[in-house]
Amino acid sequence: MLVVADNFQITDPAICAAIDTMQAAPLQKRIRRYEAAGAQAIDVNMGPLGAHGSRKMVFCIEALQEVSSLPLYIDTVNSQAIEAALKICRNPVVINGFSLQPSKLETILPLAVTYDVDIIGYLLDPGGQVAADCQTRLALAIELYDCFQKSGLEPERLIVDPIVVPLIWQDGVKQAGEVLQTLRQLPDVLGFPVRTIAGLSNLTAGRGYREKRLLMEKAYLPMLSSAGLDMILMNINHSETIHLVHTCRVFTHPGIFTWEQI
Amino acid sequence: MLVVADNFQITDPAICAAIDTMQAAPLQKRIRRYEAAGAQAIDVNMGPLGAHGSRKMVFCIEALQEVSSLPLYIDTVNSQAIEAALKICRNPVVINGFSLQPSKLETILPLAVTYDVDIIGYLLDPGGQVAADCQTRLALAIELYDCFQKSGLEPERLIVDPIVVPLIWQDGVKQAGEVLQTLRQLPDVLGFPVRTIAGLSNLTAGRGYREKRLLMEKAYLPMLSSAGLDMILMNINHSETIHLVHTCRVFTHPGIFTWEQI
Repeated sequence: MLVVADNFQITDPAICAAIDTMQAAPLQKRIRRYEAAGAQAIDVNMGPLGAHGSRKMVFCIEALQEVSSLPLYIDTVNSQAIEAALKICRNPVVINGFSLQPSKLETILPLAVTYDVDIIGYLLDPGGQVAADCQTRLALAIELYDCFQKSGLEPERLIVDPIVVPLIWQDGVKQAGEVLQTLRQLPDVLGFPVRTIAGLSNLTAGRGYREKRLLMEKAYLPMLSSAGLDMILMNINHSETIHLVHTCRVFTHPGIFTWEQI
Repeated sequence: MLVVADNFQITDPAICAAIDTMQAAPLQKRIRRYEAAGAQAIDVNMGPLGAHGSRKMVFCIEALQEVSSLPLYIDTVNSQAIEAALKICRNPVVINGFSLQPSKLETILPLAVTYDVDIIGYLLDPGGQVAADCQTRLALAIELYDCFQKSGLEPERLIVDPIVVPLIWQDGVKQAGEVLQTLRQLPDVLGFPVRTIAGLSNLTAGRGYREKRLLMEKAYLPMLSSAGLDMILMNINHSETIHLVHTCRVFTHPGIFTWEQI
């Protein structure tokens, strides 16, 4: 599993302030810290981005790629800002992302075609709602892949997100299982070893219970790994969970095991 | 997952000495400690048992059931000692176990019939060797279940052990994956929700690397849980792993989640 940091968010007051006042240093300090903590890619979560969205995005991407060559996941629903990022981003880039929502099919998916980059597809229904179970997720995946193929992109460009939901949702525990089943069945259903990503922090969304949240995370992560997950979007400050990612890799990279490798 | 302690072993010098000198107190102290640490059943691993095997077994079972009502897993290849235990054991009891090895089919499986108790069946070939992969394990399971059914036992009496092997074996990492696949497919292959058990300590067998061994254990345990494992035979002194068993239960017992439950 590849570790994608989910910490770079415009909702973080310090990041928001640095972007508003066009100060690169605080942003660069962050990405250096995430990289040191084990991030192999950074989700640049810019929210919907209002006025000057493209300008803010460009400033941010420029600042980050000045100090890091990590892949950047461009995470916003603002297609103009995504395009602005794609035009200037020299690091490997992933659009995060599209779904069956008509606006995203119309404005975001085509950007992956134009700029020939990887794109994450969420298994959400056309209204943006989370599916109730594995079967519905797989049906959405078939529909999503159909749109994807029609756009002319190579299958390798697709990364599917089955959508992890908070455990505290009414059906949260059941959903955690449905996500695992979806991950296991996706390659067969789509007919190729499609790459997958999941947001671990979402599982324990909310406040309080820090120790328990870490425990739930550390129980669910190996389950995701064992179900075939390729990329984990997670809180890079959770060092024990990062360590666990490395440990899980032993099981997904067959070869002769030695204690020195972990 | 039910926690079965694997710590009660006649190879433990203190346990061996207590049995040899017929002192109940040290054995009773042990089982009390295992129970306090979270054991829900105890594997009474007596090895092959030589001279006075039945007498030693009876002494041991009597000592344990005097202070604990936990289920006892009678773990020896000595069928006479197993029978001696079954005759006097008042606690819930499980025979651990039989396989396709002719001697075990002839002498151990019939004891489960006579005393109408649960029995563990190992997915080993008739020569006692570990299977190379999932498909071979499933074929062994079908053969084992066939023998089991012919003996007249109810399906609910069977507990299958797919055999976890040490990671340091040449194909240890691959085998860890084959065990997970076996667990996932067993219910479909046998046609009923057969119960399963696996020995976690075996994964990290050997000396040294204590921290790393705990890490590997904590990565593999949720994978086993997610693959449907019912009972985990494990070192009861590993408190963090025990805690993780409880955490994993959240995912296997669907219902409304609250942070207070873990």
